[in-house]
Amino acid sequence: MAESNYRIKTIEWQGDEVVMIDQRVLPLEEEYIHHTTWQEVADSIRTMVIRGAPAIGVATAMGMALAAMQSNAEDYQSLRADLDAAAQGLFETRPTAYNLGWALDQMKKIYGEPGEPGEIRARMKERSQEILEEDIAMCMAMGEHAAPLFPEGARILTHCNAGALATGGYGTALGVIRSVFRRDPSIHVYVDETRPFLQGARLTAWELQQEGISCCLITDNMAGYFFKKGEIDAVVVGSDRIAANGDVANKIGTYTVSVLAREHGVPFYVAAPTSTVDLGVPDGDHIPIEERPTEEVTCMMDTQVAPHGIAVCNPAFDVTPHENVAAIITEAGVHREPYTESLAEAKKGKD
Amino acid sequence: MAESNYRIKTIEWQGDEVVMIDQRVLPLEEEYIHHTTWQEVADSIRTMVIRGAPAIGVATAMGMALAAMQSNAEDYQSLRADLDAAAQGLFETRPTAYNLGWALDQMKKIYGEPGEPGEIRARMKERSQEILEEDIAMCMAMGEHAAPLFPEGARILTHCNAGALATGGYGTALGVIRSVFRRDPSIHVYVDETRPFLQGARLTAWELQQEGISCCLITDNMAGYFFKKGEIDAVVVGSDRIAANGDVANKIGTYTVSVLAREHGVPFYVAAPTSTVDLGVPDGDHIPIEERPTEEVTCMMDTQVAPHGIAVCNPAFDVTPHENVAAIITEAGVHREPYTESLAEAKKGKD
Repeated sequence: MAESNYRIKTIEWQGDEVVMIDQRVLPLEEEYIHHTTWQEVADSIRTMVIRGAPAIGVATAMGMALAAMQSNAEDYQSLRADLDAAAQGLFETRPTAYNLGWALDQMKKIYGEPGEPGEIRARMKERSQEILEEDIAMCMAMGEHAAPLFPEGARILTHCNAGALATGGYGTALGVIRSVFRRDPSIHVYVDETRPFLQGARLTAWELQQEGISCCLITDNMAGYFFKKGEIDAVVVGSDRIAANGDVANKIGTYTVSVLAREHGVPFYVAAPTSTVDLGVPDGDHIPIEERPTEEVTCMMDTQVAPHGIAVCNPAFDVTPHENVAAIITEAGVHREPYTESLAEAKKGKD
Repeated sequence: MAESNYRIKTIEWQGDEVVMIDQRVLPLEEEYIHHTTWQEVADSIRTMVIRGAPAIGVATAMGMALAAMQSNAEDYQSLRADLDAAAQGLFETRPTAYNLGWALDQMKKIYGEPGEPGEIRARMKERSQEILEEDIAMCMAMGEHAAPLFPEGARILTHCNAGALATGGYGTALGVIRSVFRRDPSIHVYVDETRPFLQGARLTAWELQQEGISCCLITDNMAGYFFKKGEIDAVVVGSDRIAANGDVANKIGTYTVSVLAREHGVPFYVAAPTSTVDLGVPDGDHIPIEERPTEEVTCMMDTQVAPHGIAVCNPAFDVTPHENVAAIITEAGVHREPYTESLAEAKKGKD
């Protein structure tokens, strides 16, 4: 298990630099980007060098630690002002990712109270590393909780990338698949390519290939075909934000998969850390949905495919209503309807 | 109306050459390919220079006429042997398109009975032109039948390209949209990009833009999002083959759209000429589904996006069960459940 963890280094500290694998050029190139300022980290979040809610949380924490290190402030008030500005800048990068705000809150616990600047800097860096390690441990716990839910030889559909690359390592939905695979190497995974950004084709397919897990890449609109043929036994996806009632925001297309799963009597599972659960949001209607640039739809790898000047919609996420969700798996366990109760229970004692 | 017809020349005779617009390079380039042999036509069908069931039917008929003109045969038996070989070659290009076989049958009615070679050649060319003209007339009739089904200001989703480019001209599903638009210019069309071959992004978006019809391009996996928001009032798609019971084979992803439409109480219409209805096939399970090359999924405009060596599935079509179809519109009228009866009625007196 440790091996599968450490094969993919999504994000890490190297000295005082934050290093991320550039997910935009995977799977054909493996390049690493070094960050020394929070602004560079914000850019990397915005341009999807790094993506996936938990990974964005880790990057945000590390970005805040960089902001502390960048700041020349010698007194608490000046440091605080610099950090508040950085927090605001990081917050605006991706509006749907709840872990981003969660990570900012974690860091604010350190710098929110007056203290000695040098000590605050050190503690922020330390805490960002802890968040990374906790994230990996949480993914592994999710895998352990979820693995028994899957039948022998399960054929599992996943959408987008909720893998090692979307987290500190191991992955949420793909961490579950890794844990199922450790018990039962005969599983097979259908990978939705996940337009427009192709996280499935580029990242999930790559991770599964690296692990030697049997898989098959399909376009998003083929999922229904395989459901109808009875070739999908379960679905597992990650999430960017989960409302108190169990409504799940995740990559655009997830809702359609959930409708297909219900239509065909296939269980639809969501794997996400409790930090993704936002009890302050009563239901999915209150989750803001990020609209991304039109070029993601009209261009394929920098080649224009649609007519010039065509109108485009590009919502990056959709909301799957809790009725379509068979279970939500967090590091705390397997949660089922009524989610208002089970998720509140899961969050108890968590920040 | 005549104008919208003649704006897009999908396929036509120019002297003794068959000229097709190259649909692989649209919408950024407008190139025309000239064919003087049936083998060139077969290649163009196989490589999707031309696609769409009715257009393939027209191309097949014209390809057979070219085969007759190519043949040096001076007696009927030799000509017949050449034409049988051409028919076989054309038949193998796209296994799901029923109109292909239908067009071959039409031509065989001419050369199946002994006759004078010169006369057979002339009649085959004439008949292929008639098939083109009949196809356009049928599309217009479908539009007239279907237009009253749509509410004022309808927001209509379509998948793939069942447009002028998929037919002799005007289009089946897109012909319906053209007819609705003539009555009510306030309509809006959601265009599924239609992976992997992007017929929606490249062709449907282009046709709608040319007509000045308000539209918005989305990735296939966004349709569910707009259904859920209540922003889609009706769906209309074409078909590659319709079984006797009303099961509809169409571009991969159509089935998923039909499930979403039913889930949200939105009518799902299919527009296709009666030549697409195959009474010899009892239901969708008996329709062969073409599997296309993996590169269509792993490469975007010649750029590899997925890991090298990844396994891929690429079924080109799926089957929408008749339960999900609100009505099938042919040139004969609007047909509803029970389709076994209404389609048999529609086919009466047709070849």
